[in-house]
Amino acid sequence: MKSAILSIGTEILFGEIENSNSRFLSDQLNLLGIDVLYHHSVGDNRDRLSHLLKQVFEEVDLVIATGGLGPTQDDLTKETVSSFFNEDLVLHDDSLKSLESNFKRSGSEITENNYKQAYMPKEGTVLTNKHGTAPGFVLSKNGKIIVCMPGPPREMKPMFCDYVVPYLHTFQNNVIYHKMIRTFGLGESHLETMLLPLIDGQKDPTIATYAKEGETSIRVASKRKTLDEAREEVLKVVYKICEALGDHVYSIDDEDLHIVVGNYLMNNNITISSAESCTGGLFAGKITEIPGISKVFDRGLVTYSNRAKIEELGVSEDTLEKYGAVSKETAEEMADGLKRVSGSDLCIAITGIAGPEGGTLEKPVGLSYIAVNYKGSTFVKSFQGRNVSRRYNRRYAVLQMFNYIRQIVK
Amino acid sequence: MKSAILSIGTEILFGEIENSNSRFLSDQLNLLGIDVLYHHSVGDNRDRLSHLLKQVFEEVDLVIATGGLGPTQDDLTKETVSSFFNEDLVLHDDSLKSLESNFKRSGSEITENNYKQAYMPKEGTVLTNKHGTAPGFVLSKNGKIIVCMPGPPREMKPMFCDYVVPYLHTFQNNVIYHKMIRTFGLGESHLETMLLPLIDGQKDPTIATYAKEGETSIRVASKRKTLDEAREEVLKVVYKICEALGDHVYSIDDEDLHIVVGNYLMNNNITISSAESCTGGLFAGKITEIPGISKVFDRGLVTYSNRAKIEELGVSEDTLEKYGAVSKETAEEMADGLKRVSGSDLCIAITGIAGPEGGTLEKPVGLSYIAVNYKGSTFVKSFQGRNVSRRYNRRYAVLQMFNYIRQIVK
Repeated sequence: MKSAILSIGTEILFGEIENSNSRFLSDQLNLLGIDVLYHHSVGDNRDRLSHLLKQVFEEVDLVIATGGLGPTQDDLTKETVSSFFNEDLVLHDDSLKSLESNFKRSGSEITENNYKQAYMPKEGTVLTNKHGTAPGFVLSKNGKIIVCMPGPPREMKPMFCDYVVPYLHTFQNNVIYHKMIRTFGLGESHLETMLLPLIDGQKDPTIATYAKEGETSIRVASKRKTLDEAREEVLKVVYKICEALGDHVYSIDDEDLHIVVGNYLMNNNITISSAESCTGGLFAGKITEIPGISKVFDRGLVTYSNRAKIEELGVSEDTLEKYGAVSKETAEEMADGLKRVSGSDLCIAITGIAGPEGGTLEKPVGLSYIAVNYKGSTFVKSFQGRNVSRRYNRRYAVLQMFNYIRQIVK
Repeated sequence: MKSAILSIGTEILFGEIENSNSRFLSDQLNLLGIDVLYHHSVGDNRDRLSHLLKQVFEEVDLVIATGGLGPTQDDLTKETVSSFFNEDLVLHDDSLKSLESNFKRSGSEITENNYKQAYMPKEGTVLTNKHGTAPGFVLSKNGKIIVCMPGPPREMKPMFCDYVVPYLHTFQNNVIYHKMIRTFGLGESHLETMLLPLIDGQKDPTIATYAKEGETSIRVASKRKTLDEAREEVLKVVYKICEALGDHVYSIDDEDLHIVVGNYLMNNNITISSAESCTGGLFAGKITEIPGISKVFDRGLVTYSNRAKIEELGVSEDTLEKYGAVSKETAEEMADGLKRVSGSDLCIAITGIAGPEGGTLEKPVGLSYIAVNYKGSTFVKSFQGRNVSRRYNRRYAVLQMFNYIRQIVK
């Protein structure tokens, strides 16, 4: 089945909002085994939308559209699409009821233009909107299908997953199952080389690699007659990949590294504190993203100045003078000092050069030292980041911290 | 002039990458006074690209294309576009030289397929790529213009600003000048109401408002015969808006709030430390984004547990018990304690309920207290955020912290 994604809204053409819907829908349609040939965006303009619908249905069977379903004059997706499919709009009882109860709940007066949202194409299937007032719908005629959904992602995504996915499944003879493997510490090309024996000549499951800030993910997907069969084939390959990549794999369920580490600490009741210099609190900020982490996270000290390192962590002036603030020795004293003040089971410290200034020939921008005090030992490692930017260097350093914890506690 | 933006690359249709180029280009073209009618994305597919070019040039005069200019077999934008314009590809000396010197500098061997990048359409204007190996180009025939640029944003954006903007200016009889005013503490609809006397009936300069996480921006733009005239008209309106919104305006140069505050502290040599509970280090992480901030930022204490608040900041157990960790009293003691341990000129502390759990009827999720110890006084305020999500609540609280500092130090 060939498809196109259509985003409707003048604000997109003004560059006022990011069009994140297209990416989400592309990803989802590909997982369903549906080819996406085009993304199109068009304003809230009846003529151009009609014209585009005509052009696009010459090449594809399925159009997934978002936007232009609201109550205002501007919103004319429903009217234009219905007219393109020669469909009348009729009052839809359930949508009317749901609209009225929505307004009643929020305590606000229902305005006249809102009733527009309860009119739906006569032969269409209405899609309930659990997170907003504008319902979506599906229209299908002569083998051409259009799905129209509201533009806001928090309304569109659940509508797509709850109603559109099962509907589109009925057109597929096969089922797709996939797993996303997350790895740290391997570049994409290096990882591809390691996986070459698996990838080469591989038709199904497919293996695709994706690089993002310091991490590489691997998607393994299989399209089979049954879900069980697809799952079995995917898991076989996932197992082989884990074997080939060993400790570099930190999740086979597409979880973020800090979530994997945070959950491990919570599940095993390992208390933790952090002392940061170059990352300036980003590690603490990241770990406290996790709801419930207060169970194990005690404190984070951002000792940015030398004075703060001395006063808060008892780093010696001698060490700072002799080895510098960015050194193995300072990192170790930071971690050990943090252990004394916090008593946490695991104390992690980092010091490094985030840039853009402050680098030298011996200690270039992107160099960092991480020390971990755990079970009576102090572990220390250094790494040299790629120095893409201050922002990248700091974020990459935080990933390195989480990964180091993962390696030490397991 | 009517235009369309064309993104070329199969990875976009797979949902593998976010298409951020379209938004950037839309914004830029609108500022140049060029109407954007469509965004299209198509894969690296010769037939579909040709077909789309034919369709799109029936409606527009200008196509801005990105992607598909690289050295691999997949990259066929240049070949397809040239053939569409009946243009031959010829070896372009300057591009060849720049390619060779690029490879020489990086010390890697130039591979055969890379030479492909030095062939350019005969009658085209070549656009130098300062940040990558693939040059861009402009082709123009019979009133139809196409601009082709590489896909990676860090290569495309400077190419567009350095070469394409001045080129497109030559087609415009008018010049556009704009200013972006940044405000904090006003919702978009409230702000629109306040500006209604200015917006109503306003043709040029135009006034548009944009909402994002807790902030609202106002773009004032004017299209006039000369830059001086446009600038003068814009500044008149900017002045009026600033007068109407008063202290809510923190920048008329589209700067981020933390940058405005960080620069003020650096320029005035005001040293600062922070103590955070609910924001978990995000404030420290944000202020240390600013290069050179070590001049004034001394330390940040993430006192997540009650024990950390007591041990690091000397918050009294009584206060924690009587008023709770999330209270005016605890915030004040945190700020005052931080003053004792750091001695910084300005000591800011925050405690709040980030959610999703932990809220009560009296203290709902999203409630926070901020205290600032500055010049012998301790200021304290509370605010109730909208509780969109833990992530939003924490980010919004950090904005509140920066804004409170701005109000106190000025």
